[in-house]
Amino acid sequence: MDARHAILFEPIAIGSKMLPNRFYQVPHASGFGSVKPRAQAAFRAVKAEGGWGGVCVEYAPFSPDSDDSPAIAGDIWDDRDARALGLTAEAIHAHGSLAGMELYHGGASCPNGTSRAVRLAPSQITSGVQWSGLAKEMDASDIARIQRNWVMAARRAVDVGFDIVYVYGAHGYLMTQFLSAHANRRTDGYGGSLANRGRFWLETLAAVRDAVGRDCAIATRIAIHGDSGVPGAEGLPGIYADDMLTLVKMADDLVDLWDVTVGSWPEDSGTSRYFPEGHERPWAHRIREATAKPVVAVGRYSSPDLMAEVIRSGAVDLIGSARQAIADPFLPRKIAEGRLDEIRECTGSNVCILREETFNNIGCVQNASAGEEFRRGWHPELFPAAADPGRSVLIVGAGPAGMECAVVLGRRGFNAVHLVEAEPEIGGRLRWTRRLPTLGDWGRIIDWRAVQLARLPGVEVITGHRLTAAEVLGYGADLVVIATGSAWRGDGVQPGYPDPMPGADPGWPHVLTPEQACAGKRPPGPRVVVYDTDGYYVAPGVAEMLAADGFEVTVVTTFDVLSPVSDETLEGDMLRAHLHGAGVSVRHATTITGVGAGSVTGHGRHGEPWSAACDGVVLVTQQVSRDTLYRELAGDEAALAAAGIGGLYRIGDAVAPRMISEAIFDGHRLAREIDEEDPSQPALYQRERADLG
Amino acid sequence: MDARHAILFEPIAIGSKMLPNRFYQVPHASGFGSVKPRAQAAFRAVKAEGGWGGVCVEYAPFSPDSDDSPAIAGDIWDDRDARALGLTAEAIHAHGSLAGMELYHGGASCPNGTSRAVRLAPSQITSGVQWSGLAKEMDASDIARIQRNWVMAARRAVDVGFDIVYVYGAHGYLMTQFLSAHANRRTDGYGGSLANRGRFWLETLAAVRDAVGRDCAIATRIAIHGDSGVPGAEGLPGIYADDMLTLVKMADDLVDLWDVTVGSWPEDSGTSRYFPEGHERPWAHRIREATAKPVVAVGRYSSPDLMAEVIRSGAVDLIGSARQAIADPFLPRKIAEGRLDEIRECTGSNVCILREETFNNIGCVQNASAGEEFRRGWHPELFPAAADPGRSVLIVGAGPAGMECAVVLGRRGFNAVHLVEAEPEIGGRLRWTRRLPTLGDWGRIIDWRAVQLARLPGVEVITGHRLTAAEVLGYGADLVVIATGSAWRGDGVQPGYPDPMPGADPGWPHVLTPEQACAGKRPPGPRVVVYDTDGYYVAPGVAEMLAADGFEVTVVTTFDVLSPVSDETLEGDMLRAHLHGAGVSVRHATTITGVGAGSVTGHGRHGEPWSAACDGVVLVTQQVSRDTLYRELAGDEAALAAAGIGGLYRIGDAVAPRMISEAIFDGHRLAREIDEEDPSQPALYQRERADLG
Repeated sequence: MDARHAILFEPIAIGSKMLPNRFYQVPHASGFGSVKPRAQAAFRAVKAEGGWGGVCVEYAPFSPDSDDSPAIAGDIWDDRDARALGLTAEAIHAHGSLAGMELYHGGASCPNGTSRAVRLAPSQITSGVQWSGLAKEMDASDIARIQRNWVMAARRAVDVGFDIVYVYGAHGYLMTQFLSAHANRRTDGYGGSLANRGRFWLETLAAVRDAVGRDCAIATRIAIHGDSGVPGAEGLPGIYADDMLTLVKMADDLVDLWDVTVGSWPEDSGTSRYFPEGHERPWAHRIREATAKPVVAVGRYSSPDLMAEVIRSGAVDLIGSARQAIADPFLPRKIAEGRLDEIRECTGSNVCILREETFNNIGCVQNASAGEEFRRGWHPELFPAAADPGRSVLIVGAGPAGMECAVVLGRRGFNAVHLVEAEPEIGGRLRWTRRLPTLGDWGRIIDWRAVQLARLPGVEVITGHRLTAAEVLGYGADLVVIATGSAWRGDGVQPGYPDPMPGADPGWPHVLTPEQACAGKRPPGPRVVVYDTDGYYVAPGVAEMLAADGFEVTVVTTFDVLSPVSDETLEGDMLRAHLHGAGVSVRHATTITGVGAGSVTGHGRHGEPWSAACDGVVLVTQQVSRDTLYRELAGDEAALAAAGIGGLYRIGDAVAPRMISEAIFDGHRLAREIDEEDPSQPALYQRERADLG
Repeated sequence: MDARHAILFEPIAIGSKMLPNRFYQVPHASGFGSVKPRAQAAFRAVKAEGGWGGVCVEYAPFSPDSDDSPAIAGDIWDDRDARALGLTAEAIHAHGSLAGMELYHGGASCPNGTSRAVRLAPSQITSGVQWSGLAKEMDASDIARIQRNWVMAARRAVDVGFDIVYVYGAHGYLMTQFLSAHANRRTDGYGGSLANRGRFWLETLAAVRDAVGRDCAIATRIAIHGDSGVPGAEGLPGIYADDMLTLVKMADDLVDLWDVTVGSWPEDSGTSRYFPEGHERPWAHRIREATAKPVVAVGRYSSPDLMAEVIRSGAVDLIGSARQAIADPFLPRKIAEGRLDEIRECTGSNVCILREETFNNIGCVQNASAGEEFRRGWHPELFPAAADPGRSVLIVGAGPAGMECAVVLGRRGFNAVHLVEAEPEIGGRLRWTRRLPTLGDWGRIIDWRAVQLARLPGVEVITGHRLTAAEVLGYGADLVVIATGSAWRGDGVQPGYPDPMPGADPGWPHVLTPEQACAGKRPPGPRVVVYDTDGYYVAPGVAEMLAADGFEVTVVTTFDVLSPVSDETLEGDMLRAHLHGAGVSVRHATTITGVGAGSVTGHGRHGEPWSAACDGVVLVTQQVSRDTLYRELAGDEAALAAAGIGGLYRIGDAVAPRMISEAIFDGHRLAREIDEEDPSQPALYQRERADLG
């Protein structure tokens, strides 16, 4: 270990518990909750194994009136739920780490769709869930009941082994709704003055302390922001930094660990597009003005030097992490062992959050094993040895899927893996994606794999050679994996329109594909339409790039909002404001059906004709697999047999264009399962199912 | 039984199985799938008990590449899943009905978010799920594998007792994707000509027949539409009526039951707003041109006379039902027993679908017990006897919650229930809602309850009397239930803006609440802004009403699309087209922050100032509970005690404004649980949880 990093490995007392080091996985969603208890246990256990001294499960509601379904939470309504979550505490303890549980009530933020309970809040406020109605203004019995439930849940958590329990007060949930003068319009002892608005929180802390004594540590998660206030429910401003620090002082005796976040969730989990590593420091670190108790703060830290500097500064005591701990559960051990170049850095793309927001198991673009620990039995650092290491593998295409496949085959001990790329550099579509404005950190996907590929003795990377089918057949490989990726269509084929669009031909100067735009092609005049039926990052990225080059850019999109997928990564509002600030105009709910030399034509929401003058159009409509090579090879089984190729497989976008995380997953999966009877099909995974009684 | 209806009770052979009558609950989602097997069994069993001769579970995927999560489907991937679903077959058989299972592959429509499998389709098409990528063009091995899986699943279904298995071919899923010349761009034997496009379906039918022989009947669900073609994947036109009839003739030997739907899902499950009862007849009944086999078709039938007429016509053989069977599982028995005025007619509001589309358990505005059979032990027709029938109950307010509460208390045998309503008629907000354009059938909520209330000897309805707190205290009731509902705010308070809006005062001629508009108040000039931050039916309804009166109406909304909630009820596109046709303009993503005598002012998405001249504004921003009476009573415990009131409760919008279905649920729940120790809190319900091993 580098001596500079030793401070990260100093133990620290959190109340009555001893945290073995300064690495703390803060509570974050996983999609497992208490309904998939073995998946939860396996997912958290690898983090403890990887050296995180504290590992928390996700937000844990303790009553039907805090029902966040269909999002999956760590419900702990009763002892049976507690036993399910106890499997995780046990798994964390097995590696010597502390287990934390974030007890939570969402208040007005909970749709209560499954439970059908009335929503609760300090006042009768709305939330973003339209169909779910307004909240009930909590009466005295509601307040008392929730506090009683909080206490019982804390007791249950301790009884099944959790070392740290939370009184969750950040992110616009019930506690914050009480703290916010905008959301809390009460005229009783729980509203009005700061002390009154803080009463519910302070009373709850005291009641939990009474119940658990020193059997466990008590953490509380709060949010601080000096500029705009921390949003409470429904985007209302919550509480400002000075007020928050006053509250911290009031509660300090009751708290063993302050878990500090900044602002709203989109800021707290800010993506690399808009927030640098450690972006929360200016605000999070102000808490030291009000407490000498241990403090944890996040900031998408992946640099050991910066982490050590943060701890050394004394501002906070623990490095909090959610996304980096997903991307690399073994980060602490890698630092401890000086294996810094093996750290898989988080890209800050929030694909993990997209997967949770779309109600799926957690996933990660950098770590394909994330969320797959139990159901597929995947470990982030351990790989089953190749059944026959001598089987040679040719991978054609070094994009995300191909790079990942080669890394995993190499780690499995295959000793003759050739990764052959047509372009001069590896990376596939990421080569140009990482050069789009704000997307630079996505390049970490290439960078980490480039380093690993160079270290794996069994893997050889060959660039600048586009293999023909004949060359593949003559290569001498036992197994062939085609990973030739996809391209953006230039012909204007788009969802709902399977035929080419008249005038869409990127052979013309005024028609561009995204790849052409990134390679430097520019329209012949200043007015450019970027046409988006894709809905994610490519159209905004190209639009911003062209605007920066001085073009007048309008994004025309079939969607009702620009880049709807970015809402799932928490970036939507920021992205739209960012592009607005960059001078990009947007026209919604519009379909383009024809491209002319000086205009585009189409129709609006109700079929009404629409057209606009422009000097050029970038078509971000749909991708298409580059599968010619695969089809040539697969179409001639005799030739494959004659060449001694025992298996021909296809991965990533060459099969079907998809998110980068899923292309990487696909390459990873094939490499893990290539010794199976039919590796082309994923092996069935384990599911946790209802007891049939 | 009325002799006219006897034809509905004639048995009919479905292949080797005998259906006891002509009532057939077609496959529809429930939110239970195979993950909540006991809830599924209880939900379907009640329908068999109520007289539905055939009862199906929902769509049943049989492999990870047809993963529709987070929507919950009847997954039957393996024998363990089959055993879970077998509980339902057993429960249906206990009542002498046949059990059906709709085996299904979604093709490109499945996001495969949890399974992370690649999406499959005849060609590389997109779907509406942006983050989920494009589909893989299925190769020969994919086709063979899916057919093999279909056969294995059919065998599993039969082995656990199902009588009817489906080869699902409607609603834009995989079969339809193959049938559609727009989605299917293949050049092999599975694409091109009609016979080629039908090959996958016909081969699958034949393979399933080979596997199951006469052990079960085989149904297939197809869609017919003459005008626009049946949409295939991604809204592409699918297959036209004449072609479909050709295919029916080709497949007829292999099929025991034709389950015919019409067009896309929003049309097939058309709401009462835009489709009358039996709206599918012109197209669905054309199938008789091509087959003499039994045919089932839906059409939101609730009229016994119309049902009998449909059967008598010979066009179809079974009355298919999803929504009406949810609203009244006992419809067949009520017809059989001549209890026609007890039939609880479906409102056609698609709240059932909203609950499924938002990934919750099924629910129903008319039938509060729907979906609650297992977890709360509720039966639609059986009610636990009152612990003390003599306890008198005063219910104040005869809106949805109050009416429902009174009906259930009456059915439980409470013999002194007084339902006192301030207005001259019962119905609450539904009195004016049902008069909004297109919402007439929502009045069935009042109508059914009015009939039942009149029949219940223990319930007395008193209208036109607004009770004061003193009158309530002096009423002599043992229990008091406050159901005084909610009102639309006139002060412009809206999500994110907890303070009143300058100029928002419905005392002025140019400022209107929705209630005022419905009561006939009209702005002083022709240009009206309807301001909507609610997102459901009120703003469009008021806008259409005013447009019909000759006003120039613009809906200004904070949402990116008009009435986003209507997308969850499948009405969104139709509603927007309908309002467009009615001459209503829409301005999106705009917040109004001030009302003047001749204008409204506010800002757009990026905070840019915005204003518009108008002669009047209708504020559809937010509701507020009418809870003054409750607060007066609850605030004086001594007076309650002195009055001998042993329990004071509050239900419905008086607690928190919400959807009508949830207000009714709340009234129902209180009435069911009013003998519990603390009836103000819902009793904990049973959950089906993962086996902890």
